[in-house]
Amino acid sequence: MATEEIITDKTVSLSHQRARNARGWIDARASQINLELARGEKKPFDEVMKLYGDPHAFGQQPITSLRQLLSCLLCPNFLDDPIYPQDIREKARRILEAKPGFAIASYAAVEGLGIIRKHVAQFISKRDGYTADPEDIYLTRGGANGIKIPYYLDEARDWALSIAELRRALDEARPHCRPQGLVLINPGNPAGQVLTYDNIRDIIKFCAQEKLVLFADEVYQETMYREDVTFHSCRKVVKDLGPEYHKFQLMSINSVSKGFYGECCLRGAYLELVGFSDKVKQQILDLNSPNMCPSMIGQAAVSAMCNPPQPGDESYETFLKEKRTVLDSYQRKAKIVVSMLRTLEGVVCNEINGSLYVFPSIKLPRKAVEAAKLNNCTPDEFYCWQMLEETGIGPIPGTYFGQKEGTHHFRFTILPPEEKVVFMFDRITKFHQEFMQKYRDEDFFFHASTDQFMATTMV
Amino acid sequence: MATEEIITDKTVSLSHQRARNARGWIDARASQINLELARGEKKPFDEVMKLYGDPHAFGQQPITSLRQLLSCLLCPNFLDDPIYPQDIREKARRILEAKPGFAIASYAAVEGLGIIRKHVAQFISKRDGYTADPEDIYLTRGGANGIKIPYYLDEARDWALSIAELRRALDEARPHCRPQGLVLINPGNPAGQVLTYDNIRDIIKFCAQEKLVLFADEVYQETMYREDVTFHSCRKVVKDLGPEYHKFQLMSINSVSKGFYGECCLRGAYLELVGFSDKVKQQILDLNSPNMCPSMIGQAAVSAMCNPPQPGDESYETFLKEKRTVLDSYQRKAKIVVSMLRTLEGVVCNEINGSLYVFPSIKLPRKAVEAAKLNNCTPDEFYCWQMLEETGIGPIPGTYFGQKEGTHHFRFTILPPEEKVVFMFDRITKFHQEFMQKYRDEDFFFHASTDQFMATTMV
Repeated sequence: MATEEIITDKTVSLSHQRARNARGWIDARASQINLELARGEKKPFDEVMKLYGDPHAFGQQPITSLRQLLSCLLCPNFLDDPIYPQDIREKARRILEAKPGFAIASYAAVEGLGIIRKHVAQFISKRDGYTADPEDIYLTRGGANGIKIPYYLDEARDWALSIAELRRALDEARPHCRPQGLVLINPGNPAGQVLTYDNIRDIIKFCAQEKLVLFADEVYQETMYREDVTFHSCRKVVKDLGPEYHKFQLMSINSVSKGFYGECCLRGAYLELVGFSDKVKQQILDLNSPNMCPSMIGQAAVSAMCNPPQPGDESYETFLKEKRTVLDSYQRKAKIVVSMLRTLEGVVCNEINGSLYVFPSIKLPRKAVEAAKLNNCTPDEFYCWQMLEETGIGPIPGTYFGQKEGTHHFRFTILPPEEKVVFMFDRITKFHQEFMQKYRDEDFFFHASTDQFMATTMV
Repeated sequence: MATEEIITDKTVSLSHQRARNARGWIDARASQINLELARGEKKPFDEVMKLYGDPHAFGQQPITSLRQLLSCLLCPNFLDDPIYPQDIREKARRILEAKPGFAIASYAAVEGLGIIRKHVAQFISKRDGYTADPEDIYLTRGGANGIKIPYYLDEARDWALSIAELRRALDEARPHCRPQGLVLINPGNPAGQVLTYDNIRDIIKFCAQEKLVLFADEVYQETMYREDVTFHSCRKVVKDLGPEYHKFQLMSINSVSKGFYGECCLRGAYLELVGFSDKVKQQILDLNSPNMCPSMIGQAAVSAMCNPPQPGDESYETFLKEKRTVLDSYQRKAKIVVSMLRTLEGVVCNEINGSLYVFPSIKLPRKAVEAAKLNNCTPDEFYCWQMLEETGIGPIPGTYFGQKEGTHHFRFTILPPEEKVVFMFDRITKFHQEFMQKYRDEDFFFHASTDQFMATTMV
């Protein structure tokens, strides 16, 4: 008897018109272009640059002390080898001592290794000035897929989050579901904003009033680019609100993937639960355990992030130099990228205050909007896709993040190396001019940089 | 306004009578006993031994070549340092060359890094004598939570899997759901069996006839203990069945967590999809991607497993010696553990042919069954729990795996170090004798080593 296919592509109900991967069809097309280049096809560029938040992919060097800690943990016979600095070997030894028989790769508790949870709690305590409890810390593989209420930031006010907008989003959601939480990314992705202390405090009060758990994605907490801009953790602001807020429920995450560590594929992160009872914490663990616990190497990377070299340590000078090199370069690029984007016709772009991204708006001619429709995609997808085909550079369409109706955005990142930025923008500028020329409306274009969708007479 | 708890322990519907963790209440109790020991409480033992399949936790040493590869990958400036053998440095260099800018921790495709998928395909091709395609290989974090049809193995026939039993299980399931797949663990966990070639062929034919996808967990494929017992991969048997079976759908997993590598907490594994169309493979990826992809370190560990040192390599002699040391010790312990278990009154135990486990049955006195009921647990849980309290040794109750009604089992492992086994069994024997004495029935006990539930007059 001949066998037959049991699971066919009709079994699973997803179907896609275009070849796509987990990151969508434009990313799949980017991979395909790479293959075409490898096959020797002629293109107006010789490399594809996907603009994801993956620092090392753009040539950012790893922080030596973090890598040495992991390397040393894997080969404990190196614990006495001066190939590693003294402080790194001591840290490795202390972590290994916490596992029976120095067995770094034996199973850890699902919430993570105790000593590393302590390192995280010490890091948070020092950051906020309020003691954190290691029992509230859970080591995880990365940012969780939080439940979301779609809301918009105020582009005209440096991407601030207005309480009126939150109330609108909540009122809109309530007939359809019972909102239980609010997700906040600060510093922001995709918009690069850093929320003010007062803005965060108002958001927390709003959550308390509306009985929403606050889920704070704070993975960009060490990347800010203006002297007058400071990161305030939601946890600190909750604690500052005093005993009335001691039952306020906050989940906060941080990770080694972003910022100057940039170790995306080590998969190390932590989650802090503030204001949750022991029973709830146990239930969250039970529900999540199979996919939650990171590898010991991911956990150790979190330890390195939270417990970096200190003055006097053999590793300290190198650590400081590497950290400053990355952050100074980010700061310079945050300025360059914004000024270059602002030279493009129809593009409006806020300053980048923090994180690795910027989210410019773009006024697209009506003919481009129509061309997008003919290609079964949104106008911003069409623009990003065309840029990819012409320049090899692939920003992320605003559609993938959500944007006010009638507006069009794309996410750009400051990660490309400084020596490539000018050359990149030469290609982008040329593409942009040709694109605008090709689709230029004779009488109208859509003014889409603010909330409205307007037809404006062209001069 | 004072804040109030939003997510309370009543929000989530789980509730537990006993303190428990992700591995259940007996494991939670074992952790608690550890704390009691640390506080200085007096116990008849001075360490807790949880009998999980976690080789390094029992003192098994990691395989040096695997660890050196990972260690070297993390610090590429060591690529030229003779602290690592030549072959390891070459392997590390080839993996790093596959990532732009040698950036080992930048994101990889969700299916895993291409060069490592090739290493896996080469390993499978060599094992089975049929070429495997790297495009069918997906690097994963570990064994998936497969869908299960509960079926029983035939204890009296060395835990063989009878087709009649499969048919019974399928017929029992069909009124309740639409069974789509069958999960097979070979070599077996918890029973330590290794299925014969003919048994596997019959299972494959059964799956073809009944339109079931076969999900083969083959993570113990390198641990067998008898000369007349060989591991046959399901994939090879499918291919041997010839072109009629070319659409047979098989998912097969392997991992670095078990066997002589034993790297449980590096989280590296692979999944091979045989007989699935490209579209279905894409859909499986789309559905699973967020939790599927392992860290690059987990992926590199899979490469080390599939691409071990070869004769002539600087690492080869050490690798061979370490591998033989572990496997020889497993083989000796497989015999010792079975003989020791067989000395216990009421315990019946098959040979261990493969994997790290044995699943003896135990006849429990009726009084013990009643005592279990009073303690709100099953008889095998009660026995394992009591053993833990008296000896610090915690086998896993048969209930957690499923067992024929009226029978009681527990899972034991061969992982404790050889120098501890005799001492362990002294403690277990003393406990067992006292337990049987305490609960001995005056007239009856339950004979529960076979399928039936019988009352037998005591001599």
